[in-house]
Amino acid sequence: MDTTGSLESAALTKVLAFLDAHRPTERSLAALRRYMDEMLTMEPVGQDVQLEAVTLGGVPAEKLVAPSAGDDGAALLYLHGGGYSLGSAAGYRPLGARLARSFGGPLYMLDYRLAPEHRYPAGLDDALAAYRALLALGISARKITVGGDSAGGGLAVALCLRLRDEGAPLPAALGLLSPWVDLEGNTRSMLTFGPSDPIVTRDGMLGLAEMYIGPAGDRKDPLAAPIHADLRGLPPMIVHVGTRETQLDQAVAFAQRAREAGVTVDERVWPEMVHVFQMFPAFPEAQASIDEIGARLRSAVDNPRPPSE
Amino acid sequence: MDTTGSLESAALTKVLAFLDAHRPTERSLAALRRYMDEMLTMEPVGQDVQLEAVTLGGVPAEKLVAPSAGDDGAALLYLHGGGYSLGSAAGYRPLGARLARSFGGPLYMLDYRLAPEHRYPAGLDDALAAYRALLALGISARKITVGGDSAGGGLAVALCLRLRDEGAPLPAALGLLSPWVDLEGNTRSMLTFGPSDPIVTRDGMLGLAEMYIGPAGDRKDPLAAPIHADLRGLPPMIVHVGTRETQLDQAVAFAQRAREAGVTVDERVWPEMVHVFQMFPAFPEAQASIDEIGARLRSAVDNPRPPSE
Repeated sequence: MDTTGSLESAALTKVLAFLDAHRPTERSLAALRRYMDEMLTMEPVGQDVQLEAVTLGGVPAEKLVAPSAGDDGAALLYLHGGGYSLGSAAGYRPLGARLARSFGGPLYMLDYRLAPEHRYPAGLDDALAAYRALLALGISARKITVGGDSAGGGLAVALCLRLRDEGAPLPAALGLLSPWVDLEGNTRSMLTFGPSDPIVTRDGMLGLAEMYIGPAGDRKDPLAAPIHADLRGLPPMIVHVGTRETQLDQAVAFAQRAREAGVTVDERVWPEMVHVFQMFPAFPEAQASIDEIGARLRSAVDNPRPPSE
Repeated sequence: MDTTGSLESAALTKVLAFLDAHRPTERSLAALRRYMDEMLTMEPVGQDVQLEAVTLGGVPAEKLVAPSAGDDGAALLYLHGGGYSLGSAAGYRPLGARLARSFGGPLYMLDYRLAPEHRYPAGLDDALAAYRALLALGISARKITVGGDSAGGGLAVALCLRLRDEGAPLPAALGLLSPWVDLEGNTRSMLTFGPSDPIVTRDGMLGLAEMYIGPAGDRKDPLAAPIHADLRGLPPMIVHVGTRETQLDQAVAFAQRAREAGVTVDERVWPEMVHVFQMFPAFPEAQASIDEIGARLRSAVDNPRPPSE
């Protein structure tokens, strides 16, 4: 994979062509939701992963169990992306299955409530209820990890902020794929990478943010935009992001703020990768990233580190 | 430090204004060399650091010793930046002094030969001679760390490649500040970040590369452009780079290639930072990065890790 010899790798050309060929023709929210699920489920789930519909704290979810799952009680609560308005547990089955294999424990893909029907903090409330339900099942917080991509990454961080502020036990680690933590969009990558990012435009991001927090919502609310949060005491976090993303700057700024707050951060910046590139199996990097995140979440369960300062 | 609320921090505005106000008026190489040294030495060195002119393997160098230096024999060989054609041990005293304090051991700032008077591999030969001289002084390779910024980062990697291929003992760790490892400039950041990067333009980079390898030189030679090297067996490396750099993509691509080769890589991407931002004490990030790199190099000496796979 020579990313310096040419501007685009063969895989990137393929993914960009795929996205171009599958642009949604309708802009209604229903059509966009259908489009996102259809695009994601073009990838087969694989027969090896068992799917079970469950409910966690009253919130529907799918439990994905791969053959690699051990019986040590480790669990991964996953919060899907889609700008707080799109995405579903069903659509995220293929990505969830790959992560469940790599993690080696049950992955709970949560169908949290979406905006604009259910604005902030409905999705966050659902994540909190699901996390508490895992504790109520007898799973120790030290055995629980939380993952999320894009808006789900923001939700995962906000969940930990709520838990910390309530004095509740925090999960063992966070796995964040292109986390979306800034709702303002004044970073340089957001302002200038538009032509290179096939997925997130500034206008699209601002529109999704408004759907989530409402027209009068505060774009600096730390539970909706965790770049503005006091991050002290959060669990170790893994942050993966691509250099082609309009979201690049806010993700690396978030990682830096977390480090400054004393949080252990394992950050990886992937050359030429797009927003949540892990969704696209055409990229060799997709599986490499999932493998690394799964293994690191797993190792946080097996070898819990002391909480960050 | 809120990097998302506004496009430029106060420190960045200050550094950009400083650079604008101090643009060289002459373009001759002699003038550029003088300019770079003058700019760097606007920062005082500090009375606490002892300077000594030494020779390592026939190559002139300055030995910088801070009060924090222990007597365990640890040493840091530093290869300055300047596109293989600019920069000097005298000019790099202030940066070297800060790194020597943070490392806690003698730092050897090497005055390796510069292009175009002395083309590739003259500088690399000098680095190798200096490293061997440290071994000859009785310093174990496990006590030696090597650092470098920009072209010096490329040299530091090339030095390890030469050592590995000769079966010589490798240093304990590499500290790379905005390492320059790609001489072609076909990455997206190099092609599109020009307007935001106040230091490295694509034309400037290509010109310096040609001065180094000569008009008929091979821009893919792995010892001049280590992005093309087989990196297996290299020591653990620390890579710090800023998101405002035209060199961003090649640096993160290099870090990824090193990981793929089994090398332990500790990568940090600094939001909105410029090329070798550690040179500019106006940035709070400058000292934070130096502190982190110094401490990590030091800990590699104290707790040598097994060589990478």
